[in-house]
Amino acid sequence: MKNCIIAQSGGPTVAINASLAGVMEANKRDKYFDNIYGSVNGILGILDGKVVNLTDIEKSTPGFVEKLKLTPAMYLGSCRFKLPEPSEEEGIYDRIFAYFEEKEIDTFFYIGGNDSMDTILRLSQHARRIRSSVKFIGIPKTIDNDLCGTDHTPGFGSAAKYIATSILEMAHDTMIYPVKSVTIIEIMGRDAGWLTAASVLARNEYSLAPHLIYLPERPFSIEGFLADVEAQLEQRNNVMVAVSEGIRDKDGNYISASEAAADGFGHSQLSGTGKVLEQIISDRLKIKARSVEVNILQRCAAHLSSLTDLDESAAQGAKAHALAQEGHSGIMVTIKRISDKPYTIEAGYAKIDKVANQVKSVPDKWISAAGNDVTKEMVEYLSPLIQGEPEVEYKDGLPQYLFRTYYRKA
Amino acid sequence: MKNCIIAQSGGPTVAINASLAGVMEANKRDKYFDNIYGSVNGILGILDGKVVNLTDIEKSTPGFVEKLKLTPAMYLGSCRFKLPEPSEEEGIYDRIFAYFEEKEIDTFFYIGGNDSMDTILRLSQHARRIRSSVKFIGIPKTIDNDLCGTDHTPGFGSAAKYIATSILEMAHDTMIYPVKSVTIIEIMGRDAGWLTAASVLARNEYSLAPHLIYLPERPFSIEGFLADVEAQLEQRNNVMVAVSEGIRDKDGNYISASEAAADGFGHSQLSGTGKVLEQIISDRLKIKARSVEVNILQRCAAHLSSLTDLDESAAQGAKAHALAQEGHSGIMVTIKRISDKPYTIEAGYAKIDKVANQVKSVPDKWISAAGNDVTKEMVEYLSPLIQGEPEVEYKDGLPQYLFRTYYRKA
Repeated sequence: MKNCIIAQSGGPTVAINASLAGVMEANKRDKYFDNIYGSVNGILGILDGKVVNLTDIEKSTPGFVEKLKLTPAMYLGSCRFKLPEPSEEEGIYDRIFAYFEEKEIDTFFYIGGNDSMDTILRLSQHARRIRSSVKFIGIPKTIDNDLCGTDHTPGFGSAAKYIATSILEMAHDTMIYPVKSVTIIEIMGRDAGWLTAASVLARNEYSLAPHLIYLPERPFSIEGFLADVEAQLEQRNNVMVAVSEGIRDKDGNYISASEAAADGFGHSQLSGTGKVLEQIISDRLKIKARSVEVNILQRCAAHLSSLTDLDESAAQGAKAHALAQEGHSGIMVTIKRISDKPYTIEAGYAKIDKVANQVKSVPDKWISAAGNDVTKEMVEYLSPLIQGEPEVEYKDGLPQYLFRTYYRKA
Repeated sequence: MKNCIIAQSGGPTVAINASLAGVMEANKRDKYFDNIYGSVNGILGILDGKVVNLTDIEKSTPGFVEKLKLTPAMYLGSCRFKLPEPSEEEGIYDRIFAYFEEKEIDTFFYIGGNDSMDTILRLSQHARRIRSSVKFIGIPKTIDNDLCGTDHTPGFGSAAKYIATSILEMAHDTMIYPVKSVTIIEIMGRDAGWLTAASVLARNEYSLAPHLIYLPERPFSIEGFLADVEAQLEQRNNVMVAVSEGIRDKDGNYISASEAAADGFGHSQLSGTGKVLEQIISDRLKIKARSVEVNILQRCAAHLSSLTDLDESAAQGAKAHALAQEGHSGIMVTIKRISDKPYTIEAGYAKIDKVANQVKSVPDKWISAAGNDVTKEMVEYLSPLIQGEPEVEYKDGLPQYLFRTYYRKA
């Protein structure tokens, strides 16, 4: 008997179940594992004995894998749990490896971001130490696109498509009034500006929105920002600004917690970056300003996912399955870009110690000299990732997704 | 020569151009008008001489009407302009009617909400006074669904579909963590709770989110709310609450500007209703709370529109065209519901003085006795309105919309 166990961890994306589906599809084509188990709420499911048999669920659920591929967030639930050092709490490792032995686990797959890759690193190191043959393979996902060792991360392309489409639609909303206005769009990504940069894809032959783009990789100056906005207002009525939630001033202080924010608000800790900038525009330029905090839909709006992203995420799962068969452990599957035009990639892998606990920032050369836009190279990098639309199944006007049915209604 | 002029006004919806397309399609089938003019930025275009010839634009733009039907917000731009009483500023009326005479206008169509219907009322009354033969017909639109005389308003069904889909997707986002949390979703609609009520459509066989729904039609009690949330938290980890931005306490004070808000925040005027409730949950229940202000996408996300809504909106435009031919003036086209199952409607009209300047609230009997949910009758009323998905055309990963190209890039 040779089984595997899969878990999902960290923040949601719309593609994280596609990677799970990819492992399952690969195992249908190429039957290496007898059972695919799913650990509920990440690694915690193993510790708490909450594990489901996905092979059984698939057999009893028509269209399970296809629907799973289009379902947002984590079918298996998530956790925010960083595995302690073995020296701190060896008992946890003992329990995990005892569980693996009991269930005849050949491979553990973890679909997640940086914390999950750290878990893969620790478990694979521990396996070597105790001479366990269990293999550990990480499958990346994050809308932040900030994992090292891979051209981009599953989940990012769909979030980028959501951001670009939303900004185009919000541009239609803003450009209808013949009065001056500024609209600030606050986008997720505290340390890396990839997703904010994707706002550039909203531009088309009739709209240049967003007219200004600010990433956290460059220090943000409020005076510079006001000058940028004023220059834009001379050219058009309705200015749209895309801004990362994580922009900081030259001293590294978050703008959302800046003096300016405190001055305007009294209680800066409750204000998002967008709200702070909205207030500054209102106060200083006396222009109608609005801020939109693009909400959690940027990471869970599966009805607007990128087919390229979903296909690649599934392929990452299949690649992980193949790498397990080849005997690899302590690795993360990766995407290597062969060319932009035609867009060609291939799946590969990287040693987990080279990727875990690191952040991939936007290269400085892909940010405009003035720090208020991105370059053509960024557009060429981003554009292939949002291509294609999956056929979402609707019933009674709503998209059809999956959720675990062994709990009572959520 | 017999021409008409169309204008659009008020806040955006995704269906307002479908009504414009409906007038144009009807005129192709049944050539009553020689030219269809479009007034840019509502009635202001007539006053400022900013009028385009839509018949000409259509001839020179392949697929114009089809693409127009799927384009959000106002192709012709909008305004927030309430026509003064003739006694206050008769000159405006003189200019408008002189323009109509110069352009040989037979009918003026105004697609909009309450203010636009007030404009139709005033212009049609003035026409009678000065014995002008120009006809005035209103075509309703508002995501708020608060116009009287019609079963529902164009634009509402799509906004309702957006709300329901978004909440389902956000439910997937919230239910992944095995920790207690409360998510507050703040929905547009200051005076009428129709759109907030539409959140009920998100419920399905595995998710009961939103678990609580609060409309502005019932007084909101913070203590009652906390008790409701606590009761829900006993049954599940992740509670979702849909709340109208316009909820008020028993004395009529907005919750967003309440004592509780001021206590929590210092600067209540900057806080939305959702943020206030989030803060109250955090402070009083010591539970992880988050609030999401569903942003302007609820009125402009054309990629997620309701086909039923778009078809009905186009049919409302066609009905307006037919009513003009029949010689009607001083009316608004309406939707009359014949039955829920099968869903059957017919287009009709109402005298404009019976509908202008009134608000249609949610009937009290469609709100649950406890005031924290809606009834089965509400679900039966809402459900048909979100059915069907239009075929949105995507190019390079983005939906393809239209915008006026006679200005420089927006």
